[in-house]
Amino acid sequence: MIEVGIFGATSYTGLELISLLVNHPYACIGFAASFSKAGEILSDSFPKMPPLPLISPGEADLSSVDLVFLCLPHGEAAETAIQALEAGCKVIDLSADFRLKDAAVYKQWYGKDHPQPDLLADACYGLTEITRESISGCSLVANPGCYPTSVLLPLYPLVQEGLLHGQVIVDSKSGVSGAGRRPKETTHFVSVNDNFSPYSIGRTHRHLPEMEQVLQDWGSGQTGMLFSPHLLPVSRGILSTIYAPTKNGTNLDTLHNLYQSTYQNEPFIELLAPGKHATLAHVVHTNMCTIGIALADSTVILTAALDNLIKGASGQAVQNMNAIYGWEETSGLIFTGGHHAST
Amino acid sequence: MIEVGIFGATSYTGLELISLLVNHPYACIGFAASFSKAGEILSDSFPKMPPLPLISPGEADLSSVDLVFLCLPHGEAAETAIQALEAGCKVIDLSADFRLKDAAVYKQWYGKDHPQPDLLADACYGLTEITRESISGCSLVANPGCYPTSVLLPLYPLVQEGLLHGQVIVDSKSGVSGAGRRPKETTHFVSVNDNFSPYSIGRTHRHLPEMEQVLQDWGSGQTGMLFSPHLLPVSRGILSTIYAPTKNGTNLDTLHNLYQSTYQNEPFIELLAPGKHATLAHVVHTNMCTIGIALADSTVILTAALDNLIKGASGQAVQNMNAIYGWEETSGLIFTGGHHAST
Amino acid sequence: MIEVGIFGATSYTGLELISLLVNHPYACIGFAASFSKAGEILSDSFPKMPPLPLISPGEADLSSVDLVFLCLPHGEAAETAIQALEAGCKVIDLSADFRLKDAAVYKQWYGKDHPQPDLLADACYGLTEITRESISGCSLVANPGCYPTSVLLPLYPLVQEGLLHGQVIVDSKSGVSGAGRRPKETTHFVSVNDNFSPYSIGRTHRHLPEMEQVLQDWGSGQTGMLFSPHLLPVSRGILSTIYAPTKNGTNLDTLHNLYQSTYQNEPFIELLAPGKHATLAHVVHTNMCTIGIALADSTVILTAALDNLIKGASGQAVQNMNAIYGWEETSGLIFTGGHHAST
Amino acid sequence: MIEVGIFGATSYTGLELISLLVNHPYACIGFAASFSKAGEILSDSFPKMPPLPLISPGEADLSSVDLVFLCLPHGEAAETAIQALEAGCKVIDLSADFRLKDAAVYKQWYGKDHPQPDLLADACYGLTEITRESISGCSLVANPGCYPTSVLLPLYPLVQEGLLHGQVIVDSKSGVSGAGRRPKETTHFVSVNDNFSPYSIGRTHRHLPEMEQVLQDWGSGQTGMLFSPHLLPVSRGILSTIYAPTKNGTNLDTLHNLYQSTYQNEPFIELLAPGKHATLAHVVHTNMCTIGIALADSTVILTAALDNLIKGASGQAVQNMNAIYGWEETSGLIFTGGHHAST
Repeated sequence: MIEVGIFGATSYTGLELISLLVNHPYACIGFAASFSKAGEILSDSFPKMPPLPLISPGEADLSSVDLVFLCLPHGEAAETAIQALEAGCKVIDLSADFRLKDAAVYKQWYGKDHPQPDLLADACYGLTEITRESISGCSLVANPGCYPTSVLLPLYPLVQEGLLHGQVIVDSKSGVSGAGRRPKETTHFVSVNDNFSPYSIGRTHRHLPEMEQVLQDWGSGQTGMLFSPHLLPVSRGILSTIYAPTKNGTNLDTLHNLYQSTYQNEPFIELLAPGKHATLAHVVHTNMCTIGIALADSTVILTAALDNLIKGASGQAVQNMNAIYGWEETSGLIFTGGHHAST
Repeated sequence: MIEVGIFGATSYTGLELISLLVNHPYACIGFAASFSKAGEILSDSFPKMPPLPLISPGEADLSSVDLVFLCLPHGEAAETAIQALEAGCKVIDLSADFRLKDAAVYKQWYGKDHPQPDLLADACYGLTEITRESISGCSLVANPGCYPTSVLLPLYPLVQEGLLHGQVIVDSKSGVSGAGRRPKETTHFVSVNDNFSPYSIGRTHRHLPEMEQVLQDWGSGQTGMLFSPHLLPVSRGILSTIYAPTKNGTNLDTLHNLYQSTYQNEPFIELLAPGKHATLAHVVHTNMCTIGIALADSTVILTAALDNLIKGASGQAVQNMNAIYGWEETSGLIFTGGHHAST
Repeated sequence: MIEVGIFGATSYTGLELISLLVNHPYACIGFAASFSKAGEILSDSFPKMPPLPLISPGEADLSSVDLVFLCLPHGEAAETAIQALEAGCKVIDLSADFRLKDAAVYKQWYGKDHPQPDLLADACYGLTEITRESISGCSLVANPGCYPTSVLLPLYPLVQEGLLHGQVIVDSKSGVSGAGRRPKETTHFVSVNDNFSPYSIGRTHRHLPEMEQVLQDWGSGQTGMLFSPHLLPVSRGILSTIYAPTKNGTNLDTLHNLYQSTYQNEPFIELLAPGKHATLAHVVHTNMCTIGIALADSTVILTAALDNLIKGASGQAVQNMNAIYGWEETSGLIFTGGHHAST
Repeated sequence: MIEVGIFGATSYTGLELISLLVNHPYACIGFAASFSKAGEILSDSFPKMPPLPLISPGEADLSSVDLVFLCLPHGEAAETAIQALEAGCKVIDLSADFRLKDAAVYKQWYGKDHPQPDLLADACYGLTEITRESISGCSLVANPGCYPTSVLLPLYPLVQEGLLHGQVIVDSKSGVSGAGRRPKETTHFVSVNDNFSPYSIGRTHRHLPEMEQVLQDWGSGQTGMLFSPHLLPVSRGILSTIYAPTKNGTNLDTLHNLYQSTYQNEPFIELLAPGKHATLAHVVHTNMCTIGIALADSTVILTAALDNLIKGASGQAVQNMNAIYGWEETSGLIFTGGHHAST
């Protein structure tokens, strides 16, 4: 049994993480730190959460825990990471601070110098299904962005097989929890309900360089990818519709076999029958990424769905912790109980 | 390990039950019968469900199971119950067929003769927290209605203490899954979204005689109760606001102590601090009934919330099975995994 | 053609008012003042709104307009009202500042001294259908609260006929726009979606003394009324379910005739056939108040629905302006265009 | 003043049309026919609708009206069209029966022979902004599909200017009213709420050949277009995100000027400033099509929003009627009244 600490415990990803960890067989929560609610009891503000005391970040005793999860804004996360590493903790960072390998790219997209550029080389990108080998010995894991997880997992088999041929267009749709818990005009119920809104479309969203970096690492020549996120009137879930041009001559059965052979042993990837499409109902409240494959002439159209707070954030973070310690990767991530009617 | 059979497996309550049973430590599913989808695999039509084969009701081998759950329309349930009992199975009936003790009252509210009036005397009413003693040796359990569960659990302490004094008014609000899975004009997304509708208000809903019967059994003189259900634009959850007149002289602390002493050891009842009110966010996707207590002059205003498909149906059915067999009552009913952001 | 000024133009009620006034045959907008968006063009921030310049409240030239609408927080509204009255403008105040006739009651419920107690005696309560006579010569109209409008209009015939006999219980449900446009935790999409929450129940909401004052003015002895508001996951609309005890011997046809004779010439009141209940779908995006009447033993159960931003606020404010000037009361309030599918 | 008849009056598009026509200055409703509700009064089933008597289609006196609107299923519409034309009526058909010019293509996509192939040559495609000249003398107008309207209006300026260069990808999202009023599993509230689902993606949806036919008529070489519709959890509205490759060298200002010069006098097209994106909030409950333009390298990314029941169906049908008779094109289509908070 290890002890873990959580920074940013009252963010949506922090809360989700706590929900998962209270049922984890090998990890227990050493402390939960929150800047805004320090001194309070978690369950007082959040129905259904356990009665954990919330401490201020400054009170956190890093020597008492084996690993910390950082559910902090970018910038802040890197500062906490260095302290935790120096105290001998392993770190899983749910922010964007260690996803980009190049400090110059970070500065370009995040508008400021990287707070800990020397750490960048040490960080492992935690797309568990693909990078679990490297994670296993790693002290600093960069948990992938929610959108990139929904795009990279479905593209991986195409890239590996060298089938991708031309510009990828990703049209993504996310629920509101992706925008965080702080109230804003754009997340007001009246702004979102009955509405649907594109934002940061084309080549302007911060998750774009993250996706291109990984695709290039995998050997795809992808540099002009388009990525268009939209805000859905739902609380949770991402669905990405991905238009991937391929060389002529592919057929749907071959593609399906490729995906099946790549992912058949993955407990958190569900591959749909050819012609079936992923929906939010497949994945919400689970750690699954569901993938549908269609083909129109030479364009593969992938639909991929996941729960942005679980597989797109805290669930994948737990999966990465499981990979670090060599535990069964599903530990703490197979949920029970009645969800069908929310689908 | 016992084997259970499910009739009506593709109703909302059937699906919910299967979700629960696949994780139950002491029960496994022997068969799942569905009239409309016999011959199909459950997961083909319902994302997130297990790949169970669905048989037709006529193919069910009652001798192969220890207990059956009936997720059937009223009338039909009673006919299946008698066969199952004769085959030596225990029966937990989620329909209304065995809730009313008096066949004449059944006829008045359901518009036809009771199909098995001789069985009525044998049925135990399965409001587990209150009736678990009688359930333990019982072969035929009538699972309570979803609305009655949300009304009777919060009223019980008042009635037991003799505090109820005058006409109770219940204003209830339910999510759409309470209306069943069969598509109707009234459950079309466009009819429900952005809308809120009263129905069967006053003394016209079939759950009224069920509630009055139980309150009278408990010794309350309640005969003119008002009950007004409303349809909420949510998938799941019931919230009942209950106006219970009491004798003068009660105060909120005394009331709270009464509730605390009654329910402090109940794992599925959450009592809120005085002045806090129950919301759907407290309970959705759990087997909890959350109760808030307020007092205005001499009227106790109770707010009670539950998930209509879990505590209001299939979760309570599993809880009743646990009571029949003397298993830990929480078996299969403590869920894990990240739900807070749906609240 | 008169000129009107609007203070608080970018509140929900201000925006709604502008939507109505741009199509009013006898009134045009002289200025629209906004503290937070002064200097901007209205349509830049709000899709579908006209390109009105927004001025700061201090720049408003009161001498240039005939009437001002105050869509301001309480306290602030009274301060602007006195200036406008001194400048010779008529005032329609959508805040709570002039609804309560007694400054002591105001202090008790709003927690501070009334800013202009001397004006209280001059204010007319603008429940147009009932008080239009007094409004016609009035310079300061207190526009009723949204909840009180949904309660007082349906109760009026009972009170007038002397049928009310005992404690009235009002269980109200409102959409989120009632909570205002400023983002808060409680109005975040994720907090509201799939949820339903009681708040300020019993005898604690500020609209309670307003309703009791009016009922007492009408000669009802009502002093212990209960009022329980709840937050609905919809953008607009209020539905109040009202339990009104009467003397024995009433019957539904008599009641229906009473309502019909009271309201038959009212263009903004729709009386449903006996046994039909009001829903949000009847009223959203209109200036209607729809009323359903049911009877259970001696309790009349009224369901009343209205759009909180129109009949519950800005629509009723325009109706009051029409009454002040003796214009056809429906001027600017009969809308066209396709709404059925939002019902 | 002309008299019009409506077939399919209780479909969503029929209801919307009636809402519009009751306020039209030059047209009044001669009859409203409904197969399913013949003999009833419209307002009895549909709150907010006028109390029109509904006749059975067979009772319709075609000689009594000048024009008929067909809100009927495809196949059925063509049969009624021929009768109406023979009786001397003009016809505006909201079904798909006269959109495709080639009976062989119709058969391929609709699975049966075209019922009236001889009429195909007479039909005008009613994309009003583009084809109003031809509509003006036409007796049979094929009202465009909802999706095609949201795609063709934004693409038109690019095609006219010869800028389109390569495969267009359209990722569309529609509200549930697009699926019709008949209850189905897929339109059940519980299936749609909290969900988001792709369907008929790639080259499989019936609106694809309609779009390609028009683009080819306009001289674009488009033959391999991809079109992916998705079902949104909203009642109304379509948003199409369109990826249109162009020749190198375009810039955003030039594009914006092109769109402005094309559409500046169109009352129902709103062109957003460069970098702003269309949302459902811009258009719901109006006859507007709102268009946003972005540019990423050489790909133009258009966002276009409209209300599927108004600009995508019944509003455009009225606009076409106005064009036929040479009336002000906005007649009956400029709505008043408070809609901002549904945005």
